Amino acid sequence: MGLTPTERAAHYATRSARFAKVSPKHLEYFKSVLDLPCSATQRKGKMLTEAQATAPYNIDWMGQVQGCTPAVLLPTCTKQVSEILRYCQNERLAIVPQSGNTGLVYGSEPVFDELVLSTQLMNAAPIVSRSTMSVEAESGVILQQCQEACEKEGMLLPLTMGSKGSAMIGGNVSTNAGGIHFARYGSMHTNVLGLEVVTAKGDVLNTMSTLRKDNAGYDLKHLFIGSEGTLGVVTRAAIKLFPLPRSKQTAIFRIADFESVVALYHLAQEHLAECLSAFEVMDGESLAISPAAQVPYERISKNDVFREGKDFTAAYFCVLVETNGSSEEHDFEKLSVFVESAQTRLGEKLDGGGKYEPILSQSAAQTAQLWELREGVPVHLASRGLIYKYDVSFPIDKFYLIVEYTRELLYRQHRMNPEEVIVVGYGHFGDGNVHLNVVDLTRSHTEELDAALYPAVYEFCAAHGGSISAEHGVGLQKRDHLHLSRTPETIQLMKALKGMIDPNGILNPYKVLPLDE
Amino acid sequence: MGLTPTERAAHYATRSARFAKVSPKHLEYFKSVLDLPCSATQRKGKMLTEAQATAPYNIDWMGQVQGCTPAVLLPTCTKQVSEILRYCQNERLAIVPQSGNTGLVYGSEPVFDELVLSTQLMNAAPIVSRSTMSVEAESGVILQQCQEACEKEGMLLPLTMGSKGSAMIGGNVSTNAGGIHFARYGSMHTNVLGLEVVTAKGDVLNTMSTLRKDNAGYDLKHLFIGSEGTLGVVTRAAIKLFPLPRSKQTAIFRIADFESVVALYHLAQEHLAECLSAFEVMDGESLAISPAAQVPYERISKNDVFREGKDFTAAYFCVLVETNGSSEEHDFEKLSVFVESAQTRLGEKLDGGGKYEPILSQSAAQTAQLWELREGVPVHLASRGLIYKYDVSFPIDKFYLIVEYTRELLYRQHRMNPEEVIVVGYGHFGDGNVHLNVVDLTRSHTEELDAALYPAVYEFCAAHGGSISAEHGVGLQKRDHLHLSRTPETIQLMKALKGMIDPNGILNPYKVLPLDE
Repeated sequence: MGLTPTERAAHYATRSARFAKVSPKHLEYFKSVLDLPCSATQRKGKMLTEAQATAPYNIDWMGQVQGCTPAVLLPTCTKQVSEILRYCQNERLAIVPQSGNTGLVYGSEPVFDELVLSTQLMNAAPIVSRSTMSVEAESGVILQQCQEACEKEGMLLPLTMGSKGSAMIGGNVSTNAGGIHFARYGSMHTNVLGLEVVTAKGDVLNTMSTLRKDNAGYDLKHLFIGSEGTLGVVTRAAIKLFPLPRSKQTAIFRIADFESVVALYHLAQEHLAECLSAFEVMDGESLAISPAAQVPYERISKNDVFREGKDFTAAYFCVLVETNGSSEEHDFEKLSVFVESAQTRLGEKLDGGGKYEPILSQSAAQTAQLWELREGVPVHLASRGLIYKYDVSFPIDKFYLIVEYTRELLYRQHRMNPEEVIVVGYGHFGDGNVHLNVVDLTRSHTEELDAALYPAVYEFCAAHGGSISAEHGVGLQKRDHLHLSRTPETIQLMKALKGMIDPNGILNPYKVLPLDE
Repeated sequence: MGLTPTERAAHYATRSARFAKVSPKHLEYFKSVLDLPCSATQRKGKMLTEAQATAPYNIDWMGQVQGCTPAVLLPTCTKQVSEILRYCQNERLAIVPQSGNTGLVYGSEPVFDELVLSTQLMNAAPIVSRSTMSVEAESGVILQQCQEACEKEGMLLPLTMGSKGSAMIGGNVSTNAGGIHFARYGSMHTNVLGLEVVTAKGDVLNTMSTLRKDNAGYDLKHLFIGSEGTLGVVTRAAIKLFPLPRSKQTAIFRIADFESVVALYHLAQEHLAECLSAFEVMDGESLAISPAAQVPYERISKNDVFREGKDFTAAYFCVLVETNGSSEEHDFEKLSVFVESAQTRLGEKLDGGGKYEPILSQSAAQTAQLWELREGVPVHLASRGLIYKYDVSFPIDKFYLIVEYTRELLYRQHRMNPEEVIVVGYGHFGDGNVHLNVVDLTRSHTEELDAALYPAVYEFCAAHGGSISAEHGVGLQKRDHLHLSRTPETIQLMKALKGMIDPNGILNPYKVLPLDE
């Protein structure tokens, strides 16, 4: 899953000979660096070398890529990170930066015997400023704790996602994390005001600032946002905050076809405009696997039809709409007008001739329930079988094509059985970000699925104006498909940048950039 | 003005010997490239060599920097731009990209005999898409025309500024243009979805895309946004659009002191939140020079006090607040509640004991009038004398310090006369972006002012957590002060990037980056 066996073998077979092997001398040096307490907090760093202690740092969240690091280094300050990286660059020691290790593209684990640099201990309490409407946080601060610190001061840190309880600021910045509120509040490129980064040569690049406008030369922080720890290690970030919304409203719709989902989205833009904060889509199939009690509408799965191989469109879609605003009364009125207008414009497509009225949440408990429905989808899917996850993006009118294509591919071309392998689509519609999930309920079709899906799914993205990575990044998983979303000139410039900033290629090797022929 | 005589001399004295002189052979080559019609439009490019024709391309908007280009090249397509730059790189010919030429930091004119590459003829009609909520525009499209094309389709291109009738998309992107709606809608880093750029070696880097989420490798477009044409020439951009607001409301306040301006801003964040689209501040002095008919409140200038040298704070401030939203009724209600709450909280500070009631605009005409007041400030100032313009940013609570400091510097330290030299401050408060203007009414104090202001003003920024450039960029004007806002490591990496992407340094030389010792 994720990588085909051939791909896996290829990755594991190519440990680069340019890297040195970690020796006792190296470990001694790291120990001496980490033993010097941080000047601000007096906290010492740590080094783990016991197999049991290093195990969780050696494997990805989905258990697919397993490295064998000789040591995990846990610095407590930027100076230690700088000394470690300078030494690694000089000694040609490969090293992987890691924070929450919740990524889904095998980007933060060692592939072979790379060292791990974990920023977990760099987790001083975030500094929240009402005056500058920003938060300054170290790399190892857990996203949810950072959100809570901001909320306490009446401010919103809008970045949020399922993994918020484990994901950390350093990884959020390094992967340009997206999430549910992206369409309303923007990306990390948008919201990071300043960064402190240690580059692959050990230089500390300090662009920390909470200024909103700052056009003094090249804006270098963008080089490190989303480059997945291959150019530098993010040690601190200043992030823009927003007024905490006083009103949060949610509604759910059951819609007959995809065309009507698009129409509903344009209506939402028109009526909800500045308060629209989420527009999440789930197809009927992704809900068919959820506990019946959670799904507020009658569930019809189209698996019967898929078996005939005639129609690969979902039986129906559910849309979860959220507004964030400063007035409960105004937002509720906007949402009501939006619902009425949708009923007029979409008629039966929206409510199945009165059978499926839109549901406006009446309480915080009901809102939580509706969000559980959405957030439960990946969890329920994962519990049912072996899961293939794709995070891709398209222009919104093509959002669902990839799901239909994958069904066609598996059921018609590869004659797989829809009762054994299910294909579902859900995601952040406003961003064109579709999460295509293929679940092998029998856990017995791995080879067939590997062969059928790679690289067909990514090639479909390329052919339809999509991106092979919407929000998860490239990591090891999509490295060899990068050319499908980027031109040769663009990849060449990425490689030139990597070569300049990390001349020995020690930082997070094998990831993001295609290997040279 | 802008540059001290010494600085000017230094710039003009150092034409780099590494560049070749333009010869007839070179011009012949350019003519042959420009004579090949663009494959899409069949339009040929142009070359201007007559002094009269090249004159407007040789001088900046404020008439301060005057080059002597031998030729202005006006390509009509990306292929021509690519061939020109590849040739210039190989032949070591210095060349300056130019679009609207409205910049204020001497960034888009030749300093010596550089060629000019104008993108003015790359101005095909912008492609507006309602489905992807984006516009694709060539470099030479005038901002206002692009705004209008979007409006026709019911969409908002939020970038706007005084120079919108001449400024062009290429320059807007290259300088990361800010403007009035920045705090609400974000920067060009936020809103540019994709770019086509010709790098300094002539490679076409195509990252054009209208996808909202696209984490496939390093996001290289950010390298070219805001790097002021020193790394590549922007030929096309895809920019994010927003729903056209149905309601636009404006109010103006007269406030007794700066502390109350800050308090008013925090109240606006609380009450107007998602609809706040501008919060512009003008000090009493900047209005004292406007035609009396335009200023809706009694004007008191503090020049009397400044003469005594005792108190350098403005006599009062005017604040212009704008909301953009989807419901006239809701926005008006929010604005009314905000005004009431401000009156309760700020009392006399806000309305001078009932003398200066806040004015809520009652009509489109009145709104236009209030905006004319704001947009007239730089115009009226420029008409009164020789003007020194500073575009700097600070944390908002320090927004006005620089104006008070400059008064102290000129009136107390340099004993200048407030009746001859006026110092005013206005700007985009929400971004911390203050436009400090010093006007020499007598046009006779140039040497004194040059000596007093440089580099004192920029050093003050550095010492108070500000930036020497908020939105105008660095250009030639602030190049030698860049170190005040950026660390040595950061400047070093900027230079390394420049060296890698433009090995012969031919593109927009002498600008942005400090010269090597």
